[in-house]
Amino acid sequence: MKKRNFMKMYQASIQITLKKGILDVQGKAVENALHAIEFPMLTNLRIGKHVELNVEAEDKEKANALVTDACNKLVANPIIEDFKINLTEV
Amino acid sequence: MKKRNFMKMYQASIQITLKKGILDVQGKAVENALHAIEFPMLTNLRIGKHVELNVEAEDKEKANALVTDACNKLVANPIIEDFKINLTEV
Repeated sequence: MKKRNFMKMYQASIQITLKKGILDVQGKAVENALHAIEFPMLTNLRIGKHVELNVEAEDKEKANALVTDACNKLVANPIIEDFKINLTEV
Repeated sequence: MKKRNFMKMYQASIQITLKKGILDVQGKAVENALHAIEFPMLTNLRIGKHVELNVEAEDKEKANALVTDACNKLVANPIIEDFKINLTEV
């Protein structure tokens, strides 16, 4: 896609975490493995996803709206996951 | 585990990303799917892991050392992944 002059490029960093109360089997497995070696002091481990992407938009609000929409429709599963978006202009 | 008085509790937030140059097939698949629906302006998508855990340690330096050690040994794969640790006292 040709970059137009009036468009800006933003880098989005998205933290996707399982909602509170949703069982995190992967996190539980890793926590148990940590306790079995030398790390009993690490607890409440939960594993989510970290997504980075570039977004081309007119301004930060539009970029945020686009990324939120993409997260709700495809990147995250809003039924069981929460997500936090952090945008920086690049 | 009983909490001793001289120990502090920290919450660690760890961002695990694939090293630059390592092919991210999952990210590529999600990016292609986004382009196929209504999001051609989202590019360079890469997917990593986001891990949250509590750590009990005497001070922040010890907590950081413990989490770094756990990441190198089990939580991340240091051959193909980078990780960033963020600690806050709770």
